[in-house]
Amino acid sequence: MGQNLALNIAEKGFPISVYNRTTSKVDEAVERAKQEGNLPLYGFHDPESFVHSIQKPRVIIMLVKAGAPVDQTIKTLSVYMEKGDCIIDGGNEWYENTERREKAMAELGLLYLGMGVSGGEEGARHGPSMMPGGSFEAYKHVEDILLKVSAQVPDSGPCVTYVGKGGSGNFVKMVHNGIEYGDMQLIAEAYDVLKSVGKLSNEELHQVFSEWNKGELLSFLVEITADIFGIKDDKGEGYLVDKVLDKTGMKGTGKWTVQQAAELSIAAPTIASSLDARFLSGLKEERVEASKVFKSGGFGDILAEPAVDKKQLIDDVRKTLYASKICSYAQGMNLIRAKSMEKGWDLKLGELARIWKGGCIIRAIFLDRIKKAYDRNPDLANLLVDPEFAKEIVERQSAWRRVVCLAINSGICTPGMSSSLAYFDSYRRERLPANLVQAQRDYFGAHTYERIDVPGSFHTEWFKIANQSKK
Amino acid sequence: MGQNLALNIAEKGFPISVYNRTTSKVDEAVERAKQEGNLPLYGFHDPESFVHSIQKPRVIIMLVKAGAPVDQTIKTLSVYMEKGDCIIDGGNEWYENTERREKAMAELGLLYLGMGVSGGEEGARHGPSMMPGGSFEAYKHVEDILLKVSAQVPDSGPCVTYVGKGGSGNFVKMVHNGIEYGDMQLIAEAYDVLKSVGKLSNEELHQVFSEWNKGELLSFLVEITADIFGIKDDKGEGYLVDKVLDKTGMKGTGKWTVQQAAELSIAAPTIASSLDARFLSGLKEERVEASKVFKSGGFGDILAEPAVDKKQLIDDVRKTLYASKICSYAQGMNLIRAKSMEKGWDLKLGELARIWKGGCIIRAIFLDRIKKAYDRNPDLANLLVDPEFAKEIVERQSAWRRVVCLAINSGICTPGMSSSLAYFDSYRRERLPANLVQAQRDYFGAHTYERIDVPGSFHTEWFKIANQSKK
Repeated sequence: MGQNLALNIAEKGFPISVYNRTTSKVDEAVERAKQEGNLPLYGFHDPESFVHSIQKPRVIIMLVKAGAPVDQTIKTLSVYMEKGDCIIDGGNEWYENTERREKAMAELGLLYLGMGVSGGEEGARHGPSMMPGGSFEAYKHVEDILLKVSAQVPDSGPCVTYVGKGGSGNFVKMVHNGIEYGDMQLIAEAYDVLKSVGKLSNEELHQVFSEWNKGELLSFLVEITADIFGIKDDKGEGYLVDKVLDKTGMKGTGKWTVQQAAELSIAAPTIASSLDARFLSGLKEERVEASKVFKSGGFGDILAEPAVDKKQLIDDVRKTLYASKICSYAQGMNLIRAKSMEKGWDLKLGELARIWKGGCIIRAIFLDRIKKAYDRNPDLANLLVDPEFAKEIVERQSAWRRVVCLAINSGICTPGMSSSLAYFDSYRRERLPANLVQAQRDYFGAHTYERIDVPGSFHTEWFKIANQSKK
Repeated sequence: MGQNLALNIAEKGFPISVYNRTTSKVDEAVERAKQEGNLPLYGFHDPESFVHSIQKPRVIIMLVKAGAPVDQTIKTLSVYMEKGDCIIDGGNEWYENTERREKAMAELGLLYLGMGVSGGEEGARHGPSMMPGGSFEAYKHVEDILLKVSAQVPDSGPCVTYVGKGGSGNFVKMVHNGIEYGDMQLIAEAYDVLKSVGKLSNEELHQVFSEWNKGELLSFLVEITADIFGIKDDKGEGYLVDKVLDKTGMKGTGKWTVQQAAELSIAAPTIASSLDARFLSGLKEERVEASKVFKSGGFGDILAEPAVDKKQLIDDVRKTLYASKICSYAQGMNLIRAKSMEKGWDLKLGELARIWKGGCIIRAIFLDRIKKAYDRNPDLANLLVDPEFAKEIVERQSAWRRVVCLAINSGICTPGMSSSLAYFDSYRRERLPANLVQAQRDYFGAHTYERIDVPGSFHTEWFKIANQSKK
């Protein structure tokens, strides 16, 4: 990714020095720069000459593994750097590490940015979405480069902005990844329902997702999903997707997102269920054993195979995917806002939606609707109550309920779609059964409760009263 | 709670000294000890005379707020303590704090236990469930007291055991509380379905829960729920439960449970959804506004009021509650096991189920079934595949699916019941759609994938292949 980003920067006309502990990687980058049009990219085999080759105030972008390797790289480079120079960490770093480093760097007179970069290898090479946070002065040093290197979206501009102070760039990238988990899980569930219940073939799935990619679901992830269904297995018969083991890996940002949601009292069930789905996918051997236990107990992987109208099902699933997506993004956006308030970062949710419109993994036409929702009302409590989104949900909610119930009755699990629906139905209900839970808490723990009719805090001797009436 | 526990200890014939910074609380305890039968409880107004009054090796149980107050109390008391003396923290402490303190105490020659105590005020007075972890030597000093003071369950013994080393006692208590969150949420959802869809009155709910408390659901929480529905409002017409505001408070252990589940790659959606339900309950004002938005969009709090057979519905909801409970406990138990493996605690899951059978908030006849499942197979991968539980689930799964779909179609949210069902359906499925997610990850991030037919790790140039075929 570092190599691709360097080539991208050089291609935009900014001369760039590159360094890696593994010298062959440096040479490889230099060779690629030559081949891809004599780009102004210069390789260095030792950190000192690398740092000294850079024009002052120096700006160095690191792309190394998060955690200790970042500290190590800073240590190696900073000894040769001078006051006013700047280090940018482009990895998926835990935001608190960035805040710690920014402070330590400031003591040396160095500037620091934690910059989330999304887009994978392709994005890095041809235009990623970039989320720099930390020293504003440092941002200003590199702004002209970032504006040209990032993805360019017509009518919307470059996919970069100064996110905010401290670790805000990393935090926003973390939530971006959590949302990405949610999107991928929801697409997987759509696939599961269409394949397992609707009996769609890979050819049909390829058609359906290609079609979806022309409408409201137009997005990078739907596009690559369509591609995937079209690819034949090069090792045997049939399609490659059917040969891929159903075990999903992960790298930590989804986990952090779920943990931060809990920390900040933000319900994020769609994102959490996508993380759980990855955990459960990993238990392949246990699942094989469990499926045997329950098959002998009388039911198979699919419980029922109801006759379905394929066209109607496809339409329903599309609507369900879209409605669930709204819930997932609502959760992610509210998580960002909660953190922004806690830390005083003053993050602009609409602007974040804008820089996600291109370059990154979750890029989608949908993000423009989110940006517009926050343009209409920057203080929007939840995307669900934006008039446009509310209207879209109302139009889709019958389909949504049909799909989830169909899945449940077929024994298909749609944790993301059903937890999204529960989120929506919880959020839009004036009265939840939480009164009972609070009464229970007051019963056994004297935690007190509020009343709907009188202000104040109350405690009742439930046990005493109940036992008097029992006598 | 400290006062009640002290009275309990004194009542069992163990002379006890008590101390509190607030001297009136000390005097109050002394007065209560006198009134409740001249119990051997002695009050002290300063820490030095308090510590010196205790027979060596001294054992002191602290019940103060978790965090800094615990450190402060240790500091105050330890200066007067001598080698071999022991401090026990009976609060809901974060397990790592206990491990830090145990080490610090050991350097002073003092022993330390972190002991989860469950049962609320009543439990503390008449027999709680106690989960001591840390120094085994310290446990041995107090074992005879704990065995008598804890709840006594016929055929099962006192609700205490040496949990394990380090912070294991706190960790187990934390998960106990997470499970408690799950139980309370599932009961609230049962209430919601019965009330909102089944149109049961409080009198009927009182009857139903009383009846349930005679069978497989027999438990403290179902019992107090029945009680709650029987209590009239002392400030006006009708029943008190209807006047309680639907906003649930919380104190942190549920949050920690969810965060630890994510940390340890354990899916715990039932517990997570109960935490989310508390978060969403707290947004009362936002929910009121959202309900207006969607009412104007054409649908009310309840979308449909299908004709239901009350008797059948009650029976279905009971089965749903029970099946969901199995999932919730499976998640909690697997979380404990994962931590035990990480930390080398060697925790005995069956023994933990045994000490939860009495005294604590989640006490239930159900825990005996869990104990038996682990007796049958201590290495059970998941409670769901225990032959007895598997059978019970198979018998209840139709009802479970009916209730969740009924709730969904009525616009009632049952996040706990539906996420439990998704957990079950995910765990018992041999093949999940995770193959697609992994293919996507390989597509955009070159994360590689495994195959179902050939061992090894593979990467495909999806983009290249897809674009060749497009040409």
